Amino acid sequence: MPDEMYRKIDATRLERLVADVFGKAGLPQANAIFMGHCLVDADLRGVHSHGTRWAAVYARGLRAGHINAQAVAKVVQDGGATAIVDGDRGVGHLAVKRAMDLAIEKAREHGTATVTVRRNGHCGAMAYYAQQAADAGCVGFAATTGGTMIAPWGGLERRVGLNPIAWAAPTGRGFSYNLDMAPSVVAGSKVQMAQARGERIPLDWAFDAAGNPTDDPEEAFKEGTLAPIGGPKGVGLGIAAEILCAVLSGGRYGPDQGERGGGQFVQAIDIEHFQPLAEFTARMDRMIDHLKSSKVKPGAPGIFVPGELEYQRRQEYLRSGIPLDQPTRDLLRQEAEAAGLPYDLEPEAS
Amino acid sequence: MPDEMYRKIDATRLERLVADVFGKAGLPQANAIFMGHCLVDADLRGVHSHGTRWAAVYARGLRAGHINAQAVAKVVQDGGATAIVDGDRGVGHLAVKRAMDLAIEKAREHGTATVTVRRNGHCGAMAYYAQQAADAGCVGFAATTGGTMIAPWGGLERRVGLNPIAWAAPTGRGFSYNLDMAPSVVAGSKVQMAQARGERIPLDWAFDAAGNPTDDPEEAFKEGTLAPIGGPKGVGLGIAAEILCAVLSGGRYGPDQGERGGGQFVQAIDIEHFQPLAEFTARMDRMIDHLKSSKVKPGAPGIFVPGELEYQRRQEYLRSGIPLDQPTRDLLRQEAEAAGLPYDLEPEAS
Repeated sequence: MPDEMYRKIDATRLERLVADVFGKAGLPQANAIFMGHCLVDADLRGVHSHGTRWAAVYARGLRAGHINAQAVAKVVQDGGATAIVDGDRGVGHLAVKRAMDLAIEKAREHGTATVTVRRNGHCGAMAYYAQQAADAGCVGFAATTGGTMIAPWGGLERRVGLNPIAWAAPTGRGFSYNLDMAPSVVAGSKVQMAQARGERIPLDWAFDAAGNPTDDPEEAFKEGTLAPIGGPKGVGLGIAAEILCAVLSGGRYGPDQGERGGGQFVQAIDIEHFQPLAEFTARMDRMIDHLKSSKVKPGAPGIFVPGELEYQRRQEYLRSGIPLDQPTRDLLRQEAEAAGLPYDLEPEAS
Repeated sequence: MPDEMYRKIDATRLERLVADVFGKAGLPQANAIFMGHCLVDADLRGVHSHGTRWAAVYARGLRAGHINAQAVAKVVQDGGATAIVDGDRGVGHLAVKRAMDLAIEKAREHGTATVTVRRNGHCGAMAYYAQQAADAGCVGFAATTGGTMIAPWGGLERRVGLNPIAWAAPTGRGFSYNLDMAPSVVAGSKVQMAQARGERIPLDWAFDAAGNPTDDPEEAFKEGTLAPIGGPKGVGLGIAAEILCAVLSGGRYGPDQGERGGGQFVQAIDIEHFQPLAEFTARMDRMIDHLKSSKVKPGAPGIFVPGELEYQRRQEYLRSGIPLDQPTRDLLRQEAEAAGLPYDLEPEAS
C-alpha cells in the first residue's frame, strides 16, 4: 500500500462512513446522517479544517459523555422575528442548523429574523449555516464563539475568541457569495499544522508572551496570541461576535466555563421583502462582473469572490473525489475499526 | 491673532453655527438643527474626519442643487420587520437617522428589524446610527457604501468601496460598545492628510497601480488602491457591505452612477426579546472587565474597548471645548461670512 499524503475519496462513501461513525457513537439516525452531510460539505468546499477530521473528535466526546448524544435542540424563547435555541449540549451543528431553519421560516413571515443559540457545542464552519439562508433566497449571517487566542488591543493575554462571522447571498451563477472569516490573520489550525511539521511561521501571524511578533508556533501556543486582522479592527470584530454569540445569546462568555456552553447567532433576511429574487441575483451578477473587470495582478490566478473557489472545488471533488490527507484517513480508519464498521474509503488499498 | 493649528471650540456654539449654516443653505429648521447635532457628535468623539468640516461641503452641494434641500425621506416599502427608505437625494444623515428610528420601533414589536436606504447621499459616521440603537436598549448594526478605493483580491483596479460597518451595544458603564470600521488598513482621509502635508505613508497602507506597496500618497490616489485589512478578508467585508447597502437596498452599486444614489443598511435587535436589559448590560460589563484583566503591553496606554475612548473624549470636550484644527475653523468662518452669519466660535480671536 503506497504511503500517499493525499488520496481522492468518494464523497458519497465518505458521507456514509461518517454517518455510521456517528450512529455507532449514539446519535439518532437522522442526526447521524446530517452530520455526515455537514462534515463532508466542508471537505467538498476544501475547508478541511472543519471537515470529516472532526468526526473522530466528536465520536470520542459522544462516547465519553462530554457531548450529549440524545440532545434535542429546543426553542426556549420565541417572539415574533426572534428566538432562542438551547443546544442541550449536543453536537453543535444540529442546533445551529435548527436555528437557521427557524430564522429562514421567520424571515418569510416578518422579512428578517434573528435567532441565538446557547448551551451548544463546537459547530464547524459558519459558511454552512449562512449558505442555508442563501439557498432559501435569503441573505444569511452566522457567527459563533471560538477558541480564545487574541489579546485585547494594548494587552498581552488571550481574552478575545477566534470568533468567525459569515455572510452569504445568492447569485445567478451557481455559487453563492459566501464569506466565512475569523478575525485573526490566519486560522489557529494553520499555526498548529506548522507546529506539527516543525516549521516556522510568517512574522505577521502571531505574537509571543511579550507581545512581539514571533515566527515560532510553539511560542504562539505556549503563552502567545494570534494576530488580529487590521490591529484594533480585528480585535473589535472578535468582540462584536462575542457580544452577539455569547452576551446576547445568554451563552458562555469571558471567564465562564459553566453550564451555559458555547453560543451562536444567526440571521436571515428574506430578499423578496426588498425586491424580486431574480432582480437581486441579476444585480449580484452585475456586481460580480464589475469586480472581475479589474485588471488581474501579474502572478495572481484571477479574480474570485468569496464562495466561488469553494463552489468550483465542490464540482471537481464530486466528480473526481475529495483529496483527504493521510492523518484524516487514518483517524477515520481507526474510528471505523473501533466501531466495527467496514472501512471502504480506499478499497484498492485494503 | 495667533496662528494656532488647534483651538478649543465650545460644542454648543459649534452646533448652533453649523445648524445656522444648514438653515441658510436651505434645509428646513428641524433638519438643520439635527445636522448641527450630528456633525458635532462626530467631533465630540474625536472622529473629525466625519465632523463639522463637512458642513461646508454639504452647504455647497445644497446651494448647487446636487443635494436636495427639500428632501423628505420616505418609507417606500414596509413589511413587518423590514422597510425600505428613499432618501430623496437629500443630506444622507437625515434618511439614515429615520431608517434607524424605524428599525428600533419595529424591533420593539418584532424583536429585530432590517431597514435599507437608497437614493441617498453621504451620511457621515456609521457609529452615530449604531449608537441610536444602543441608546434605545438595542444591539445596532449600520453600514454604508463609501468611495471605491480597494481592488478585488488578485486584481489591480478600484472595484470595492471603503464601505464601513458599525456595531453598537449598551453597557453599564456610560459608554456603549461601538465599533465603526472601514475594511481598509487606514481611512482614505489619513492618506489625504499625509498627501496634503507632503509626507510619506507606511508601506502597508496602499498599493500603486502595479499592485506593489507604496509609501507615496500621490501614487495611491492617482491610480493605486488602499490596502484591505487581512488581505482577502478585508476585500470580502467590503463586498459584504456592498451587498447589504447597494444590491439589497436597490441603491447604486458597481458601475452605476445613476439616479439610485448611495445606499445604507441598518438593523436593530431589541435586547429585551432575549434577556432583561439590566442582565445584558451586567454581562457586557463582566466581559469588559475580563478584557481589561489582561496584562497591558509595555508602552501601551491601557486596554480600551471600541467606543470607550470616544466616550471619554466627549466628556472632556464638553467640559473644555473641541480641539478643531485650523482648516476646519477656516472653512466654517468662510461659510459663516458667505452666509452673513456671525462667526462667534473664536470670540477672543476676532
